[in-house]
Amino acid sequence: MNDFEVIYGKNSVLEALIAGNREINKIIISKNIHSDTKMNKIKDLAKEKGIIFQFVGRDKFIPYEEFNHQGVIAQISPIKYVELEDFIADNKSIYRSIVVLDGIEDSHNLGAIIRTCVCAGVDAIVIPSRRNVQVNSVVEKISAGAINHIPIIKVNSLVNAIQTLKENDWWIIATDASAKDNYYDVKYDDMNFAIIMGAEHAGVSKSLLKASDFIVKIPMQNNFNSLNVSNALSAIIFETLRQKLTNKK
Amino acid sequence: MNDFEVIYGKNSVLEALIAGNREINKIIISKNIHSDTKMNKIKDLAKEKGIIFQFVGRDKFIPYEEFNHQGVIAQISPIKYVELEDFIADNKSIYRSIVVLDGIEDSHNLGAIIRTCVCAGVDAIVIPSRRNVQVNSVVEKISAGAINHIPIIKVNSLVNAIQTLKENDWWIIATDASAKDNYYDVKYDDMNFAIIMGAEHAGVSKSLLKASDFIVKIPMQNNFNSLNVSNALSAIIFETLRQKLTNKK
Repeated sequence: MNDFEVIYGKNSVLEALIAGNREINKIIISKNIHSDTKMNKIKDLAKEKGIIFQFVGRDKFIPYEEFNHQGVIAQISPIKYVELEDFIADNKSIYRSIVVLDGIEDSHNLGAIIRTCVCAGVDAIVIPSRRNVQVNSVVEKISAGAINHIPIIKVNSLVNAIQTLKENDWWIIATDASAKDNYYDVKYDDMNFAIIMGAEHAGVSKSLLKASDFIVKIPMQNNFNSLNVSNALSAIIFETLRQKLTNKK
Repeated sequence: MNDFEVIYGKNSVLEALIAGNREINKIIISKNIHSDTKMNKIKDLAKEKGIIFQFVGRDKFIPYEEFNHQGVIAQISPIKYVELEDFIADNKSIYRSIVVLDGIEDSHNLGAIIRTCVCAGVDAIVIPSRRNVQVNSVVEKISAGAINHIPIIKVNSLVNAIQTLKENDWWIIATDASAKDNYYDVKYDDMNFAIIMGAEHAGVSKSLLKASDFIVKIPMQNNFNSLNVSNALSAIIFETLRQKLTNKK
């Protein structure tokens, strides 16, 4: 298990198998779980790809008790991060979108954000290598395997990454509670854009706000200014998709 | 502590104090936590309202170890559910919105949905008294206290509730992955409407789909049809708010 990490749960394992872009060393399935459609798909795909799967007793799952493993875990190579420059070079032809995360601390939030991004067709997620939760097995589980379907770009400096994006004609949109414009006032369907979402408490850093082309807010009702970051992202990112899909028609 | 339950975390306690619609028996604060803006507000409001607060040692928090209590818990009366008929009678004059939850199983999802609804100005949430997670202290915590700012209507039968709403000129919108229309194809700004969100796995029940006026989907990208229910709701409910706010102008 040297270079492998453990992922757990049916969706995590199934989506890793479907994506097929990571090396799976072994899949371990509990003898005490009765099979269902997803579990059967896992077994079929594993067979097809020549990946070992073992049926084991309850005791083998004891180390993973605190996780909601649903009777299946896999030993898998870590995700491969993508370089920002490579991503930019590969995505020159049509309008693309990126989500940039500035200091997200909570694994559940990162997992939910990844899942939302894949469903909404976001093309990549940028995270900083420090002061942000990294991809771990909780993130993989909460993402329901979505992590395997979107490039994750890890950078040392978000300020530099934003600068690089701007030099390549990407537009930068940051979210901030004190913004004048609402998120739906921006026209998203004719540009490459990166949306910066801030930390749960601190919001987007000043240096990034300063570097942004647009700063937008979600118009909060009931004087209750405390939307969870993944839910805030969902509102914004599906508005960008709405614009793209309705203007295509 | 007979009729009281325990809520924990700074936001939960603070928002309960601000809302002021539940009886707080006592607030217990850890001696080992250094105070911050929110904690000071909690103490100020408690003093103002004549609510007892006690500083206690670490041992008093041992029963709550598994919770992210942030050094503060409160003994509080349970939330008061609202009757559907009363809500309808009180909301006759302007266009209102309700979110109806059909079989949500996860406390985190219910908490996130409540928080999103308050931020988006939803007027009430309807939950069934069975086959749905009920309001508990995890829900209160995850809602960040939002639970105190929105009526929760608990009904024995969702089918009957939908029927009652329809008889009172409410329009019913259900979400279903196989719908033809997208959620943004509906015009939400000139009617009372209820949006039904289904269980994490099973979706909205057939009987409710049948009773609905509109069935809508979120157009999923990447062939990845697995958006978390609170994120799905966020996309839809903020679209209804966008329509209301932009058509007002």
